[in-house]
Amino acid sequence: MISRSGPLVQSCLNFSEGRRPEVIRQVLLALRAVQGAKLLDVVSDASHNRTVATLVGSPRAVLQSCLAGTGKAIEMIDMNVHTGVHPRIGAMDVIPIVPFSGVGMADCIEIAKELGSLLAKQHNIPVYLYGEAATTPDRKNLAVIQTLQYEKLKLKIREPFYKPDFGPLCLHPTAGAVAVGAREMILFFNVYLSTNDVQVAKQIAKKIRGSSGGLVDVKAIGVSLENNLVQVSTEVTNYHRTPLYMVYDFVEREAAYLGTAITRTEVIGLLPQKALWDVAIRHLKLKDFDASRVLECKINQDEEGIFSYNESPVE
Amino acid sequence: MISRSGPLVQSCLNFSEGRRPEVIRQVLLALRAVQGAKLLDVVSDASHNRTVATLVGSPRAVLQSCLAGTGKAIEMIDMNVHTGVHPRIGAMDVIPIVPFSGVGMADCIEIAKELGSLLAKQHNIPVYLYGEAATTPDRKNLAVIQTLQYEKLKLKIREPFYKPDFGPLCLHPTAGAVAVGAREMILFFNVYLSTNDVQVAKQIAKKIRGSSGGLVDVKAIGVSLENNLVQVSTEVTNYHRTPLYMVYDFVEREAAYLGTAITRTEVIGLLPQKALWDVAIRHLKLKDFDASRVLECKINQDEEGIFSYNESPVE
Repeated sequence: MISRSGPLVQSCLNFSEGRRPEVIRQVLLALRAVQGAKLLDVVSDASHNRTVATLVGSPRAVLQSCLAGTGKAIEMIDMNVHTGVHPRIGAMDVIPIVPFSGVGMADCIEIAKELGSLLAKQHNIPVYLYGEAATTPDRKNLAVIQTLQYEKLKLKIREPFYKPDFGPLCLHPTAGAVAVGAREMILFFNVYLSTNDVQVAKQIAKKIRGSSGGLVDVKAIGVSLENNLVQVSTEVTNYHRTPLYMVYDFVEREAAYLGTAITRTEVIGLLPQKALWDVAIRHLKLKDFDASRVLECKINQDEEGIFSYNESPVE
Repeated sequence: MISRSGPLVQSCLNFSEGRRPEVIRQVLLALRAVQGAKLLDVVSDASHNRTVATLVGSPRAVLQSCLAGTGKAIEMIDMNVHTGVHPRIGAMDVIPIVPFSGVGMADCIEIAKELGSLLAKQHNIPVYLYGEAATTPDRKNLAVIQTLQYEKLKLKIREPFYKPDFGPLCLHPTAGAVAVGAREMILFFNVYLSTNDVQVAKQIAKKIRGSSGGLVDVKAIGVSLENNLVQVSTEVTNYHRTPLYMVYDFVEREAAYLGTAITRTEVIGLLPQKALWDVAIRHLKLKDFDASRVLECKINQDEEGIFSYNESPVE
């Protein structure tokens, strides 16, 4: 049971095991052993040989939970024998700290730094800060470190450019390194088109993604799936600034221009309720709407203030 | 603190006091004294001389809470000196029991009947069952009893047509009678138009409301407000069958036909999150979406099943 009234942060820990169920289980058990943090979702992939565990809880509890899970991953995963198609630098590969409610990015950066410092001390393992917690602009993008992979980072870590933020100037003998960061929640939003031509999806993806002149918070690629289905696969890196309707409307407009249309969409992973509210509020032109008008949110709120009732019309 | 994992029902108790703060306070205190039920919202109106208190909790807790609140209202409110513009039959006037989560209408009917029976026994007060809990088709519509008002019901109660479902064949000397029912949640959804002509709002209201051939779950009137604003004021009596986008789209179409448009909308009172999700899912064409994909819902769920993780792609 976690309290919904206090501040909450989220983490999506990526660790380098997606094949041995017992190892995955042990890491998850360590993650969930901390009171005040709750495991919400687990996705394992054998070809990536990687698991993503989504955790929500109080800042203190999530920090403790990340420490415990990382300890177990370091103990049980040997990077010298790890293979998988996803780039990785360590046993506990990536730990983002994400604002959930009642906390800001500044708090998450602080938690990430404290977590990185503790991990380095407890396990004598190098830690890289990334995202909003990065100490240099280069490190904002995790790929700078991650694409080196465990094997190359072993040597590169001695170069000044790859100096870790915490810990020794060499990799942990079996567990490699850890990337700890702070970032906004990422939404994975895929849009299916009524065409079999992947070039159309690729054209739309190019138009919408920030890197080629589109929406700054959107990454996108056009992909062809089984059954000849064609999809614009997007990542929304800041859904507050770029609500899902902006992505949908953008793709719809471009699709129409190219003579096709949206058939349906899907979300991969979990979605914060605000991402859905934003779409509903936009399409209903709802004014002055906030979480305090949602029944389920009231249930999680304090009862204080209930006696300062309004004198407004009743049924 | 109420548990979100068990079954929950809602009630919106209407009691006949909207002027004396101390009386309102005492009834609210009685309502909220029961563990497992939580007061979410209170709206008092002086001209109606009436208060609506929204309560959510386990079926048992809500039943106990309604008993306690009604006891206090009966003790403190004298209908012989009560005035107000809203029709009313008693001190605790109307108690609807509404499915919230994990319960069906059948459960709510049972709770309403048990509550009615207990109230009659404890206070020797006549109780009318209405809505889905009604024992005759006539009683489905609360207005049949309510519009008589306390003053006329005093006499009419002796006629067979007005025989209460529980309790004596005469009103309680000070507290009158109570209507206890079961119904779906009602959404109050107002649509503002970019015209000052109330006739346009009245025409749209007539088109959309079920009673004149429109949507069966919608009641609607066209009204003129301050500042010359014009509004289609609707009540959606089953938002599962009639999601808000159906109401919005209907009004939008009729408004366009009549040469005007929707400027904005508003919700009066609280909205269940599903009412917003339905709109978002529709407008995003989201497939296979349900509550289990919403982060905040996961927080309230059991962790069981988390170890049966999927082997699907990861970041």
